[in-house]
Amino acid sequence: MAEVAGRTVAELGEFGLIEEIRRLQPQGPGVLLGAGDDAAVVSAPDGRVVVSTDVLVEGVHFKGEWAAAQDIGRRAAAATIADIAAMGARATALVVSLAGPSGMSAQWALDLAGGLAEEAGVVGASVVGGDLSSGRQVMIAVTGIGDLAGSSPVTRSGARHGDVLAIAGRQGWAAAGLAILSRGFRSPRIIVEAYRRPEPPYASGPVAAAAGATAMCDISDGLIADAGHLAAASGVTVDIDPGLLPVPEELRAAASAFNVEPLSWVLAGGDDHALLATFPADAELPAGFTAIGRAEEAQQPEVLVAGQPWAADSGHEHFR
Amino acid sequence: MAEVAGRTVAELGEFGLIEEIRRLQPQGPGVLLGAGDDAAVVSAPDGRVVVSTDVLVEGVHFKGEWAAAQDIGRRAAAATIADIAAMGARATALVVSLAGPSGMSAQWALDLAGGLAEEAGVVGASVVGGDLSSGRQVMIAVTGIGDLAGSSPVTRSGARHGDVLAIAGRQGWAAAGLAILSRGFRSPRIIVEAYRRPEPPYASGPVAAAAGATAMCDISDGLIADAGHLAAASGVTVDIDPGLLPVPEELRAAASAFNVEPLSWVLAGGDDHALLATFPADAELPAGFTAIGRAEEAQQPEVLVAGQPWAADSGHEHFR
Repeated sequence: MAEVAGRTVAELGEFGLIEEIRRLQPQGPGVLLGAGDDAAVVSAPDGRVVVSTDVLVEGVHFKGEWAAAQDIGRRAAAATIADIAAMGARATALVVSLAGPSGMSAQWALDLAGGLAEEAGVVGASVVGGDLSSGRQVMIAVTGIGDLAGSSPVTRSGARHGDVLAIAGRQGWAAAGLAILSRGFRSPRIIVEAYRRPEPPYASGPVAAAAGATAMCDISDGLIADAGHLAAASGVTVDIDPGLLPVPEELRAAASAFNVEPLSWVLAGGDDHALLATFPADAELPAGFTAIGRAEEAQQPEVLVAGQPWAADSGHEHFR
Repeated sequence: MAEVAGRTVAELGEFGLIEEIRRLQPQGPGVLLGAGDDAAVVSAPDGRVVVSTDVLVEGVHFKGEWAAAQDIGRRAAAATIADIAAMGARATALVVSLAGPSGMSAQWALDLAGGLAEEAGVVGASVVGGDLSSGRQVMIAVTGIGDLAGSSPVTRSGARHGDVLAIAGRQGWAAAGLAILSRGFRSPRIIVEAYRRPEPPYASGPVAAAAGATAMCDISDGLIADAGHLAAASGVTVDIDPGLLPVPEELRAAASAFNVEPLSWVLAGGDDHALLATFPADAELPAGFTAIGRAEEAQQPEVLVAGQPWAADSGHEHFR
């Protein structure tokens, strides 16, 4: 075991770092051949795999001074695992590409790897491989594969007129936490922690699929933005009833302190990775889901809030 | 269809760019649900999938002035597809994360995406998804999944005393091409092109598996370096006979012009993604493979060249 404390990744070297990282990555029962070869081999009992990738870039998706490496690892894994959950599947394995400066602390990289493995462990997935490179900026690309366990994937395009729009998981918390950190504050701690370490409702994905969800996506760009993707793919207009949107007391209090409208965090915030799904009007919503609106026939699919277009910032788009 | 010519990715926007990229990515028959949702769904008829990831960083793995975007895309895909071939499998799907500056030309990004799709097409694989982010440096992470078609994965750890070491594909060409470009030259063109656009012997991976290969890896760090990984994993010493190593006339001529030893390109060069495999001594080598040495019992696994340790540079290690 190499000495890590106080050393940079350059001092440890690529191969030394890989060896240390591998100690932190337990390989679960679905892993037929784990990290350490040209590729890993993972069980796919369903005869299909779900696959998705997400990239987090320092200064764009996270700031090192606002979050510990372990939390950044958890967030990076969460983004991908939530995408897989949004298809109605369970993530089984992750692979990770990490680029960063040679002067990066080896312990920071190991903490990041530990966070990735921990978040994967939440759904019983394993980190089965990766690649490392030097680079000017820290960049983490996480790809996940997942298992549908016999069910049909729930796409974004199946919402129909009359379907109920429902949400599972915290929404708006990460945006509130980011706003707090951006203004130089570190509390309320519960909100800042929600930003640092999202807790997406992974299990609600397969539950929604089993309950007959007609369409589903995770909310990573913002509720309005991702509802817009679902609406466009399905060819419906989505009308959100703001009176039905959960706005927890913690968010109301923080919003009041910052003199902002708490609904703007809930409507425009991303990064909580809540799940947004539609269900037939007569379906019983599964546990964890709250109805927040309705899908309607549309010539021009759009997202409405209480029947009106939402004029304010609707979410994040890269390069813009 | 958005106007691309002369526009930056910022002008096109993340979602506009994604839409244009998707036009360039044909979805093959194994793709059950292609790009455009939270995740893709890919057929895994074998009940197992092979998975591997590779990252390419501007200034580390490539320089924009030395290679066109299309070639960089092909190289990025090649690195991952070759890893999958080295397990004895065939890549079926790729997902790609791309980060880069907002001022990046939209056409450059589309050419990159085109190159990725082209290289995937060589083995019948499809690019089924991706993620985009702004970032200071261009960074491309490619993850591939592959199909073993019922065969056992060929690991790095199965080489045994007496096995024949053999190589398939060009080796040393990319290193020679890089040396030529690094010195400000652009020819001989055939060698520069070999660097810009490797042609890994993908089909030789499953062929080697069927022929009873005991161990296999692709050569991405360098022949000595990757033979060392195979030797260490297998617990054998690998002795390379330099008289058996193919050193094509083109490399000899270029080496002579630069006053270097052509064998150093062949022994230390990476990035051609040749396949290195061991076979039982009595096995008939499959077409495409050339015997270059032997595996021997060892207390301390190492790589020898004509029975001696190789003193010179042996390959690339990141952060060093």
